[in-house]
Amino acid sequence: MATHDIPRTTLKDAALPLFGGIDVGGTNIKFGLVDNDGRTIVQDSIETLSERSAADAVERMAAACRRLLASCGATMDQVAGIGLATPGTMDIPAGMILAPPNIPGWRHFPIRDALRDATGIPVTYTNDANAAGFGEFWVGCGREFSSIVLLTLGTGVGAGIVLGGKTIDGKHSHGAECGHVPIEMGPQARICGCGQPGHLEAYASATAIVKRAKELLAQGRSSLISARLAKGEKLGTKMLFEAAEADDPFALEVIMESAGYLAVGIVSVVHTIDPEAVVLGGAMNFGGHQARTGRAFLEHVRSEFRRQTFVTLAENTVIDFALLGGDAGYIGAAGMARESHAGRNPALV
Amino acid sequence: MATHDIPRTTLKDAALPLFGGIDVGGTNIKFGLVDNDGRTIVQDSIETLSERSAADAVERMAAACRRLLASCGATMDQVAGIGLATPGTMDIPAGMILAPPNIPGWRHFPIRDALRDATGIPVTYTNDANAAGFGEFWVGCGREFSSIVLLTLGTGVGAGIVLGGKTIDGKHSHGAECGHVPIEMGPQARICGCGQPGHLEAYASATAIVKRAKELLAQGRSSLISARLAKGEKLGTKMLFEAAEADDPFALEVIMESAGYLAVGIVSVVHTIDPEAVVLGGAMNFGGHQARTGRAFLEHVRSEFRRQTFVTLAENTVIDFALLGGDAGYIGAAGMARESHAGRNPALV
Repeated sequence: MATHDIPRTTLKDAALPLFGGIDVGGTNIKFGLVDNDGRTIVQDSIETLSERSAADAVERMAAACRRLLASCGATMDQVAGIGLATPGTMDIPAGMILAPPNIPGWRHFPIRDALRDATGIPVTYTNDANAAGFGEFWVGCGREFSSIVLLTLGTGVGAGIVLGGKTIDGKHSHGAECGHVPIEMGPQARICGCGQPGHLEAYASATAIVKRAKELLAQGRSSLISARLAKGEKLGTKMLFEAAEADDPFALEVIMESAGYLAVGIVSVVHTIDPEAVVLGGAMNFGGHQARTGRAFLEHVRSEFRRQTFVTLAENTVIDFALLGGDAGYIGAAGMARESHAGRNPALV
Repeated sequence: MATHDIPRTTLKDAALPLFGGIDVGGTNIKFGLVDNDGRTIVQDSIETLSERSAADAVERMAAACRRLLASCGATMDQVAGIGLATPGTMDIPAGMILAPPNIPGWRHFPIRDALRDATGIPVTYTNDANAAGFGEFWVGCGREFSSIVLLTLGTGVGAGIVLGGKTIDGKHSHGAECGHVPIEMGPQARICGCGQPGHLEAYASATAIVKRAKELLAQGRSSLISARLAKGEKLGTKMLFEAAEADDPFALEVIMESAGYLAVGIVSVVHTIDPEAVVLGGAMNFGGHQARTGRAFLEHVRSEFRRQTFVTLAENTVIDFALLGGDAGYIGAAGMARESHAGRNPALV
């Protein structure tokens, strides 16, 4: 559903030095070669192969970096730093990936230094959602805003906070886990994937919205999607989006309910951080500004946020879709490597 | 109920330059002359007289500053800056106090520049809870911790966050309004003083705990405090504290329930910021470490937090009482003036 565009350049026109960005996901690892102005020169991806070892992945990442450089005629000595972003859990200062739920083969591995040794280039290590937040801040919607919170809506709800030009890594590498702020107590609270009740992620993620749709359908609600499910198609947010675009009241209701919950989570983080803007990224954007459903989703988030916050924040805090889509992670990782190269800590701890 | 101790020195032994700190509350304005190491040389307070104008208050503040200096033999030219902390709402970059609920006479007044003009000394303007957080960070429990969240438990729930050595003022001067993070949705949610449902302050403030005790007593619950109420005494957290110290099960239950809610709020802010420590200040500390009730309150907050967070945070995030009591505000305001004097912005915006 996501649509986006990113700034691009060629090696000939690139602002030097260059930075590599690597964004590790459960299925794919995205790579990009980014210039000093945040423009992507070339990008690629490889499979994560999450059941294999982290050492194997590091070798494949280093090889992929070399191929990426060769593909545009660049050389390793033009690259001043590599930013490496992975999902948690992690120990960022130690450069360790600890126990990523979606990559079972990569437990307790010194991934930062292994990649540095395999490439000969300094590596800055960070959390994937923080990297995406930094990418949006550096060359996406953050170009307009001095501080942002990025909420990524997908399987889970990720978050990256950029304040004072730095991400919030946190003292224990758990900064910006906004998907896990509690918004509901008591016995009716939904259970989050992490096992705790009432977390935002249990209400506003793709997983949550699909689960909620299934519950309501099981209660006998009718919808355009019922016919597709009867044909054996699998219920997902894309199907809900398509039904909503076709004026299916059920799909719209489920999507708007999720928007309302998301607004409560936004109130929580805004009342803690007070950023200039909250931007919504991730695959679940219901077509973004280009689709009627995306626009209605965004407008409902905005109006529910405004109803539940202070006047000044209701009038001034910007809520909008993010701009960089799935490229935000490697761009931001490259941008954080650029901060390290300039002698600045890219993160608040 | 609060007990505390602060670092002190004399003018003779003071590290120069000196800084003035002013902490405006609804009833009193606290003043302190603080040395370059954060030690208090002399302190005083005057009445706020909240129905009078802000211009009148500024004149009285300037006169009180001069008296304070005279009382220890210091002179205005030894004071490099004054930190002024007020309750919100405010526009910090503009130096304006906007609409403080407890000080109706002080609306839309350029208080920072008025105080500078009245004293001839540069003034750094900040929020009262942020100043208290900065005070704890500078010379209180923050001496041990690189990042802290201070939650002040009193009439409301205030918060000050210090991250990267700076407070979070926020883009719209609404940073660290953690008393207003939603922790409950739905029709059973309690209504906060700000009018919104489900905010932490509606569950964990002195106001909330007293209201809850009254509700339960009206339902026929028995307690040691019933006899005191029958004599016409007014129910407050001090009475609940005294009953709890005398083993009153009702008082203990109400206090522990509040501790459980506070833990949910702490989960929210910790999952957003991941500080090294969360410290509990404000008048409602149930005797702190010196009292059995205070220790039980703290232990219940800790155990409920641990139960609801991630393993690394449960094992490592420190939760404890703050150290500076009601002096944190003027000390922190002075410390923020010291940051400004050194050419550093004391705040993240």
